[in-house]
Amino acid sequence: MNSPTSDQHRKKSRGKYKFSVITISSSRFQKYGSVSSPDEARDTSGGFLVDYLQEHGMSVIRYILTDDDRSDIIKAVELAMDSGADVIITTGGTGLSPRDLTIESLKPMFDKEMPGFGELFRLRSFDSVGTAVVLTRTTAGIIQGRAVFCLPGSTDACRLGIEIIVPEAGHIIKHSRTN
Amino acid sequence: MNSPTSDQHRKKSRGKYKFSVITISSSRFQKYGSVSSPDEARDTSGGFLVDYLQEHGMSVIRYILTDDDRSDIIKAVELAMDSGADVIITTGGTGLSPRDLTIESLKPMFDKEMPGFGELFRLRSFDSVGTAVVLTRTTAGIIQGRAVFCLPGSTDACRLGIEIIVPEAGHIIKHSRTN
Amino acid sequence: MNSPTSDQHRKKSRGKYKFSVITISSSRFQKYGSVSSPDEARDTSGGFLVDYLQEHGMSVIRYILTDDDRSDIIKAVELAMDSGADVIITTGGTGLSPRDLTIESLKPMFDKEMPGFGELFRLRSFDSVGTAVVLTRTTAGIIQGRAVFCLPGSTDACRLGIEIIVPEAGHIIKHSRTN
Amino acid sequence: MNSPTSDQHRKKSRGKYKFSVITISSSRFQKYGSVSSPDEARDTSGGFLVDYLQEHGMSVIRYILTDDDRSDIIKAVELAMDSGADVIITTGGTGLSPRDLTIESLKPMFDKEMPGFGELFRLRSFDSVGTAVVLTRTTAGIIQGRAVFCLPGSTDACRLGIEIIVPEAGHIIKHSRTN
Amino acid sequence: MNSPTSDQHRKKSRGKYKFSVITISSSRFQKYGSVSSPDEARDTSGGFLVDYLQEHGMSVIRYILTDDDRSDIIKAVELAMDSGADVIITTGGTGLSPRDLTIESLKPMFDKEMPGFGELFRLRSFDSVGTAVVLTRTTAGIIQGRAVFCLPGSTDACRLGIEIIVPEAGHIIKHSRTN
Amino acid sequence: MNSPTSDQHRKKSRGKYKFSVITISSSRFQKYGSVSSPDEARDTSGGFLVDYLQEHGMSVIRYILTDDDRSDIIKAVELAMDSGADVIITTGGTGLSPRDLTIESLKPMFDKEMPGFGELFRLRSFDSVGTAVVLTRTTAGIIQGRAVFCLPGSTDACRLGIEIIVPEAGHIIKHSRTN
Repeated sequence: MNSPTSDQHRKKSRGKYKFSVITISSSRFQKYGSVSSPDEARDTSGGFLVDYLQEHGMSVIRYILTDDDRSDIIKAVELAMDSGADVIITTGGTGLSPRDLTIESLKPMFDKEMPGFGELFRLRSFDSVGTAVVLTRTTAGIIQGRAVFCLPGSTDACRLGIEIIVPEAGHIIKHSRTN
Repeated sequence: MNSPTSDQHRKKSRGKYKFSVITISSSRFQKYGSVSSPDEARDTSGGFLVDYLQEHGMSVIRYILTDDDRSDIIKAVELAMDSGADVIITTGGTGLSPRDLTIESLKPMFDKEMPGFGELFRLRSFDSVGTAVVLTRTTAGIIQGRAVFCLPGSTDACRLGIEIIVPEAGHIIKHSRTN
Repeated sequence: MNSPTSDQHRKKSRGKYKFSVITISSSRFQKYGSVSSPDEARDTSGGFLVDYLQEHGMSVIRYILTDDDRSDIIKAVELAMDSGADVIITTGGTGLSPRDLTIESLKPMFDKEMPGFGELFRLRSFDSVGTAVVLTRTTAGIIQGRAVFCLPGSTDACRLGIEIIVPEAGHIIKHSRTN
Repeated sequence: MNSPTSDQHRKKSRGKYKFSVITISSSRFQKYGSVSSPDEARDTSGGFLVDYLQEHGMSVIRYILTDDDRSDIIKAVELAMDSGADVIITTGGTGLSPRDLTIESLKPMFDKEMPGFGELFRLRSFDSVGTAVVLTRTTAGIIQGRAVFCLPGSTDACRLGIEIIVPEAGHIIKHSRTN
Repeated sequence: MNSPTSDQHRKKSRGKYKFSVITISSSRFQKYGSVSSPDEARDTSGGFLVDYLQEHGMSVIRYILTDDDRSDIIKAVELAMDSGADVIITTGGTGLSPRDLTIESLKPMFDKEMPGFGELFRLRSFDSVGTAVVLTRTTAGIIQGRAVFCLPGSTDACRLGIEIIVPEAGHIIKHSRTN
Repeated sequence: MNSPTSDQHRKKSRGKYKFSVITISSSRFQKYGSVSSPDEARDTSGGFLVDYLQEHGMSVIRYILTDDDRSDIIKAVELAMDSGADVIITTGGTGLSPRDLTIESLKPMFDKEMPGFGELFRLRSFDSVGTAVVLTRTTAGIIQGRAVFCLPGSTDACRLGIEIIVPEAGHIIKHSRTN
């Protein structure tokens, strides 16, 4: 789908950017508390994201497990940004329950929203979950030159999302910082 | 597309939830006034929705034909909610005319919006109407634990919409009420 | 995809509506200033749009090259509207850079937004650019009975966009002016 | 406070504009239903407003008693506008209870809000109710060239409000219709 | 200003409601960290508020010193609410610096805003600070039946604010919980 | 009202900041076009502001007369900012006519709004115009570290406004740039 040239261009830019993975899960957080790796929390989705990124040559500088309060979600993103993350991927809290507050918490912080990310995610997701795509509000945006992607909590959803994120994260960051 | 297990799970939850169908049509309302069934208003779209739901084992507790003023649209949804409807489907008023006020009236009442519904509706709609999908602003959202779907006024559009709604309505309601 | 009847209906309505093309490009504007044709500014994207529209029997009443400040973008749309344009197509400024202000400038002026336009544009765009569709925020809306489409700056993107716009512009205008 | 000249100017413009009074009161509406005069509903606040307006030479073309649902509040304003009212005064539903929905219902319809009205109302109200002024969210705005004032439910509050409204209503209407 | 009857009514309702005081101060928090009393952080403003409330027979169930990040401000309010506070008073972060984020953080959580509180605060504040009242964005609102007041960081400002809050807090809470 | 110390502090900071005055007047602009001084346009309000500022030792680096389109208002503020203005004062376009677009155009650009400015302006304005204060929507805000004040078009209103602005402009700028 992409020409060889643009593929080479993409590969070269890989590794330059630092990733952070944030798992937003009330049940897991209440059981394991603040941990520094997905293994400690038996967090399959977060673990998948960290592994996938590292296997594709990306630098994951920080993993955060957090509760699903507004303040905890925002705090995790603030910590990731303070740690120097260029790309922040959250998993969990994008559904329709009153406890699903990831979108509500982070959208007001977006300088620009990327409507195409949620659309593409749901389009691809349709092949595996069918009409259940209407259950997710997944989206992405730019906060102060960082790209923030809000994925659902399941490992399957994370796989779909990360396959969109990895090829484009470099471009998004570069564009969002070009004045 | 869905595994047998999840299909069985879905079937079991059918019938538990109550539906309400609201036809938003100025011309029809001015001719027939307040009626309690689609037949009385020769309302093909509303009639199709009611029939489809009942044929699929759903309980339709209330049909409302209403004018397309902001107050009438909101009143119809309030009535459906007061009647105990879990899922409310409106048809009409989602287009680009200044008289199309369904989205304007109901969106401010949404606790959460479901961007995936409008996307999936337009994606499927493309096969029959082509680029004319840009003419519809159809969307869906949660109001106090009820799912509200805003479909266009044509019977074809209602058919496309209801095929997305019926398999997912139960999940949406369950999720939106889980704290 | 469309029946012959609706195609004939569409052809008849062509030519009735007036188009305006606005190229939003800081680099080009700073080099060429206010020009009245794409040729003068060696503007490939704007030139493509004007040519395409004229080849399809549309009347292009005004071409504007403009800088990417909020005021310049809004001014160009105001000028196009004052010139009597029914359909206004902008190219450029829909990306993720802080200088990309087309969406920020025009969205607050929309009486109604057409979510389906951006969705369909990105869906079709996916075939040529893949996951890079997440980089564009292209959208469209109605301002006082005129249709405004905000396309990205590349000629390829303009081609994708104009193929959606031309068949539907007449319907959009007609609907948006029907009370 | 105003010069004699401006006072004369004001007097001349009186009578030209038509007023409508809307009482938003759940308890009263449930007891008396749709009535066409404040007397029928023993509505002291609404009655005071109608009397005051008529005593000051204003034409009150319509009184509406309504429930405090969003739809009923909007419907009452739509009816008043359809009846030809230039100035619409609501009383009730401006407080802090979840049932107080006058501001929530009408603010989204305002073309322009008048922040000075709420400020001046609360400033004057302070002399009689002290710090309790923080309990009211009273405000005013323009809807399609009509002035809409949202007063609290008490007769004292209505007296304070109407003394601001009567001298300025004519100017507000005139300004809001001058292009 | 208030009649004896309403004064007695107010006194009776005192003590029923629980207060929480939150000091939002980056410099203080970085020096003293999480402390449970204003004394530990030599926090004059927070200390004044706690003392004033207790001297007036109010129950202060929790004092929180916090940093001025969005997440910390929201977290402090969440903690106060979880502790059972009916009235939450924040001090600090209401000014015009980019670090002043109290209003930005809490306003999106308000179910209803009380415009009269900021107005009355600035009106009274004018006597001591003159035109400098334009520097503060102090406001108040209802979050899930709790009253949240956002005061500036100075002790003088806290004195002005608390004199408005104490007489009205009971009424605000009562109203905001009446359906 | 202010202590001598704070007055001396204020005087010292005067002259450091650069002012720009923008007159938003359709009739005047159509008659005189782009002029660089109030005299050329017989602009009494703008002339008053420039004179007052200079008499009080302020540096006025730019005067702009502009039409009342959205784009022209924003353009004038962009030009003033590009010229290095720290404080921008607009006069005109704050009323209730559909042509009054100053607030609509500039409010979306505010990083922070200063509610106290409009309140204080209207409070003082009440002494001369009485209840007519409800006719003005004057406000102020911060755009990228610059203070922007939107005054009404009359010279009397400008006098009231400038007396609030001059003593506080230095503080506002300093605060808004302190991180």
